[in-house]
Amino acid sequence: MSLGEFQIIQRFFALGNDDPDVLLDIGDDAAVVQPSGPLALVTDTLVEGVHFSSQTAADVVGYRTLAVNLSDLAAMGAQPRWCTLALTIPDSNEGWLEGFTSGFFRLAKIYGVSLVGGDLTRGTLSTTLHLIGAVGDGAFLTRGGGQVGDDIYVTGSLGDAAAGLVLIDDGVADESDAHRALAERFSRPLPRIAAGRALVGLASAAIDVSDGLLADLGHLCKSSGCGAVIDVENLPFSVEMLALFPPQTAQAYALNGGDDYELCFTAPAEKADEVKAVLGVAETTVHRIGELVAGEGVESRRDGAPFNQTDTGHQHF
Amino acid sequence: MSLGEFQIIQRFFALGNDDPDVLLDIGDDAAVVQPSGPLALVTDTLVEGVHFSSQTAADVVGYRTLAVNLSDLAAMGAQPRWCTLALTIPDSNEGWLEGFTSGFFRLAKIYGVSLVGGDLTRGTLSTTLHLIGAVGDGAFLTRGGGQVGDDIYVTGSLGDAAAGLVLIDDGVADESDAHRALAERFSRPLPRIAAGRALVGLASAAIDVSDGLLADLGHLCKSSGCGAVIDVENLPFSVEMLALFPPQTAQAYALNGGDDYELCFTAPAEKADEVKAVLGVAETTVHRIGELVAGEGVESRRDGAPFNQTDTGHQHF
Repeated sequence: MSLGEFQIIQRFFALGNDDPDVLLDIGDDAAVVQPSGPLALVTDTLVEGVHFSSQTAADVVGYRTLAVNLSDLAAMGAQPRWCTLALTIPDSNEGWLEGFTSGFFRLAKIYGVSLVGGDLTRGTLSTTLHLIGAVGDGAFLTRGGGQVGDDIYVTGSLGDAAAGLVLIDDGVADESDAHRALAERFSRPLPRIAAGRALVGLASAAIDVSDGLLADLGHLCKSSGCGAVIDVENLPFSVEMLALFPPQTAQAYALNGGDDYELCFTAPAEKADEVKAVLGVAETTVHRIGELVAGEGVESRRDGAPFNQTDTGHQHF
Repeated sequence: MSLGEFQIIQRFFALGNDDPDVLLDIGDDAAVVQPSGPLALVTDTLVEGVHFSSQTAADVVGYRTLAVNLSDLAAMGAQPRWCTLALTIPDSNEGWLEGFTSGFFRLAKIYGVSLVGGDLTRGTLSTTLHLIGAVGDGAFLTRGGGQVGDDIYVTGSLGDAAAGLVLIDDGVADESDAHRALAERFSRPLPRIAAGRALVGLASAAIDVSDGLLADLGHLCKSSGCGAVIDVENLPFSVEMLALFPPQTAQAYALNGGDDYELCFTAPAEKADEVKAVLGVAETTVHRIGELVAGEGVESRRDGAPFNQTDTGHQHF
């Protein structure tokens, strides 16, 4: 319980990187890396009591710290490379640090991300990751390229994480395989890096679904200067969601719940076959859920009729 | 008091950058920048109650958020380029945000730093900056290149910030010009970017003095695999320090106090004239305070005799 800053860094974080483009690793005033083209920069903070609860397991906090940032890079079509971690912890609890780093480095290994530096501070538990990804010259996705008439797609299934969080909060996350699967979608989301990479040059606009579909698609529409109509009967749900919740509840989770970390993107109608083909290679399911229209804002329809959407999404602040 | 996340970002932070190497600015899932060589990456967190008090003016928090990170880049001999800011605030106090951004952007303008992204979160007040600087190919400073026999130097004057913090805490920071000058050294330190740039290819090792000379020189020695002897009568003090404090107190502040953000560096004895010449051009005073020796640890001497050093420096954690 009495490890100092330098001991903690040495023991838990300075594990070495085998990336030849890391010219100077953890342990100096800065890390030095060697990029070979443009870089995408993302930063996301998780605060205890805001983004996770005091009951959240340390390895879930470590995993999600990296996952939520990877998801932002996925939405850019970027390849994750290097990160620095600012970790604020109330005390040097070795068990917590072991859990946190085990969750963090497990995901880092999967995506080939090198942790090259950071800062360790005492205070209310929070994590801020800065993650750097490589993008091609002018070849990256943005929120702003959507055109009226483009199809709107989402990867995977929606609403699972919001449903999972409810199951966790209700203490029933372990009640069945379906419960566990939804809880896992909240605790350990899979960022859509491969899908994002595959969509570069194909999608006209993209965003990751972190704050709920209505909110995030709304951001995409605003940046693209148009509106959207989505058909809620086309929203993709997991078998676990459909086993545990009625359709209306699933739709509400999908539209307004956060933390799914799927990609929502647009593409011209004539690219529909190509979209399905490249995402098949990326082992990602994809569903067309609507289209971009003239105007502004996101309108939901069910069976062609306006669908009442009471909430416009989650704001982390 | 009720501004949302996106309004705050638009009004206070998304002010636009005229850097042609910023390919995608604030407002998407990531920023995209175009580097032209290796990059130095630094991250530092400031937490209310740990690194500054609840009484600290918002513009000082903004200024120091950038300054402490600039200082790390100075120690690498790097040229500051881009940053992302993770800001956690308890509420959307517009007056505080105006102060914070005024302090932050004032310093950003001086050093040509572009804020390209970030994250805004609700919670206990803390700031985490990720700052990226450009370095030449293999041409940057580290802590690890010092050799036995090298001279040890510091830029500027030491101890001012620690003394200034005491004056601020005692409520006497405004008592005279000298009091104000020392308090200002704590509140608005000047990172030694020009000095760091000038020392590339000349200094054998460098570190910034953020945790106190003994602690930081100790890190340099450990990385360089040697020890150090310093002569406390050669430590440089400001006229304000000498006007307000006896020499013993000044020496204690210099050795153990943090937050000066001067550079401590080493260079071979035959480079002494060149060191003084390049730092003269960088408008930085410099003093030789000792030399690297075989062994480990930092020994202080006064008039050639061992000097009692009771504290080995400040740990932020």
